[in-house]
Amino acid sequence: MAITVVGSVAYDSIETPAGRKDRCLGGAATYFSLAASFFTDVRVIAVVGDDFGSEQEAVFAARNIDTRGIEHTAGKSFFWEGSYLDNLNEAKTHTTELNVFASFEPKIPDSYRDSEFLFLANIDPVLQRRVREAMPGIKLVAGDTMNYWIKDHRPALLEVLKGLDVLLINDTETRMLAGNNNLVRAARAVMEMGPRALVVKHGEYGATLFVGENMNGTGAKTFKTPAMPLEEVVDPTGAGDSFAGGFFGYLASQPKLTPGVFRRAMFYGSTMGSFAVERFGTERLQQLSRQEIDDRFNVFRELTHLD
Amino acid sequence: MAITVVGSVAYDSIETPAGRKDRCLGGAATYFSLAASFFTDVRVIAVVGDDFGSEQEAVFAARNIDTRGIEHTAGKSFFWEGSYLDNLNEAKTHTTELNVFASFEPKIPDSYRDSEFLFLANIDPVLQRRVREAMPGIKLVAGDTMNYWIKDHRPALLEVLKGLDVLLINDTETRMLAGNNNLVRAARAVMEMGPRALVVKHGEYGATLFVGENMNGTGAKTFKTPAMPLEEVVDPTGAGDSFAGGFFGYLASQPKLTPGVFRRAMFYGSTMGSFAVERFGTERLQQLSRQEIDDRFNVFRELTHLD
Repeated sequence: MAITVVGSVAYDSIETPAGRKDRCLGGAATYFSLAASFFTDVRVIAVVGDDFGSEQEAVFAARNIDTRGIEHTAGKSFFWEGSYLDNLNEAKTHTTELNVFASFEPKIPDSYRDSEFLFLANIDPVLQRRVREAMPGIKLVAGDTMNYWIKDHRPALLEVLKGLDVLLINDTETRMLAGNNNLVRAARAVMEMGPRALVVKHGEYGATLFVGENMNGTGAKTFKTPAMPLEEVVDPTGAGDSFAGGFFGYLASQPKLTPGVFRRAMFYGSTMGSFAVERFGTERLQQLSRQEIDDRFNVFRELTHLD
Repeated sequence: MAITVVGSVAYDSIETPAGRKDRCLGGAATYFSLAASFFTDVRVIAVVGDDFGSEQEAVFAARNIDTRGIEHTAGKSFFWEGSYLDNLNEAKTHTTELNVFASFEPKIPDSYRDSEFLFLANIDPVLQRRVREAMPGIKLVAGDTMNYWIKDHRPALLEVLKGLDVLLINDTETRMLAGNNNLVRAARAVMEMGPRALVVKHGEYGATLFVGENMNGTGAKTFKTPAMPLEEVVDPTGAGDSFAGGFFGYLASQPKLTPGVFRRAMFYGSTMGSFAVERFGTERLQQLSRQEIDDRFNVFRELTHLD
C-alpha cells in the first residue's frame, strides 16, 4: 500500500572523519522515501527551490517515487551544513538555511489521497498536523520530531502526538519529551501522549520498539534490533530517516500488521540505516538492490538469534 | 567444570537515584562468583580484612562457593565509595581504600588446581599474570581490566592479554586499548593482542561478542545481546562482573564450546547483569533461583527473535 511522506528535501554539506562532501541531495523526506521505495510505492510532499533540477528529479524517478507533491518555487532549497568530526553519533550544525522551506505550505495532490500510510518526517508540528488532518483516510500514521520542537513547540507537538500510531525518535528525545531518564518509563509516558507504538533509535546501538497494550490487540511486545557492526561509518546523516523508511516501508508492504511484521520491520529499519551510513548522502541508497537488503536482513538474524 | 576466579572482595558504599546503602558486600570476585555459581562450581582467590566475618562468609556458603582461597589478614577489606546520581552508566568514585588489597599476593589452594576455567577479574595485571602462570592446566581463561591499567600499566596488561582466551571490557576501554574509535576495528586490534574472543559491554545497550577467525575453528560470528529494559535500575554496581559470571559460568557448565554455546552464554551474561542492578549490592543475586534465570533468558529470546 502506498505511503505519503511529508518532510524536507534539501542540500547538505557534510564533513566526517572519512572526508567532506558539498551539497549532497539530502533531507528527511529524501532518505525516507528512497529507503521505503524498496518495499512499496512512495509519494513525497515537500518544497524545493530552483536549484533542484532534472538531476535530482532523476534520483527519485529511478526509484519510482512519486514527486508530484514536490512544489517548485523561486529561491533556494533548504540547506544544512554540519560535521561529525568529534563524534559520529551527533552532528554539529554549522549552518541551517531554511530558504524556500521557511514558507512551506504542504499541498496534497489528489493522486495521493488514496494513500493508506502517512509518514510525518521531522518538520514543524503545525504542518505535520495540517497534513494529518487533510488525509482522514489514512490507515497508519507514523512520525518523527526533534529536540527543537520538543523544547520550544511542545503544545503543537502534543497535538500531533495525539494523532500518531507510531512515533520514531531517539533516546535523548524520548527522555526529554517524557521528562524521565529511565527509558522504559519514558517510553510509557510518551505512549500515553498518543502513539500506540514507539521506536526509540539508539544510533550505533540499534533501536527498541515499545508497543502499547492495545496495539493490534495481539500482545505485541518490546523488541530490540541492533545496529550493524560496521568497520567504517562514512556519513551518519540520514541514518534515522532511512531506518524509518525501511521500517514503515516494510509495514506498508504487508497485508496484515502482526507482531511478527513489526519485528521484521525493525530489522528492515536497521538494515536500511546500516546501508545509508556507508557512503556520503543518499549515494548508497541510490545504488542498492533488494537482494542486498535481504542478505543484510539475514546478517541481522545471525547477529541476534541463538539458533 | 569448576571456575577459579581471582579478584576483589570488598565493601561498597553506594548512592544512586534510588537511595543510599553503606558497606554492602561487593567486589568484582563477589559479583562474579555469585552469578557464576548458578551454573557451575566456583572457587575464589582474594584477600579480606578482619571486618569480613561469618555473615559475609555465609553469603558465599549459601551458593556453595569455595572460599578456601580467600586469605584473611589483619586490617580492613578493600573499600569503595561511589555514586551514580547524574548518570547510571558511569560511577563517580568518591573514595578508594585498597587497605589489605594493597599487598595482595594471590595464593592458590591445592584444591583449586584441577579447575579448568580461570577468570581474572579486574586487578593489577601483574597479579593476573602470576595467577595465570601458576595454573597451567587451565582449559579456558577469561579476564577483565579497566581504564587505569590500560593507560598507566600497558606493558604488564599486554602480557596478560597474550595469555587470554576471552577478554570482557566496555566500549570506552576497547577504544582506548586499541586507539581506534570504530568499535569493529578496535575489536579486531584488541584480538590481535591475544584474546581469541572479545566481549564488549555497552551498559544499558547490552554487549557484543566478537570472535576471532580461529575461535574453536567453527566459524563462530559476531553476536549481540541487548540489556533488559528495566523500569528501575536501583544500583548499577557489579553489572559487568555479574555479566561475566553468567557468561563464563554458562560456558564452564557446557561439555563442548560451540558457537551456539557462546551465543547462549551472552544471553546468560545479560540475564545475570539485569538481575544484579535490581537491588543494592549483591542482594538480588543472593535471592535468585535458577528458574527465574531461565525465565528471564526466555524474555531475552522474545526481545530479540523474529519468530
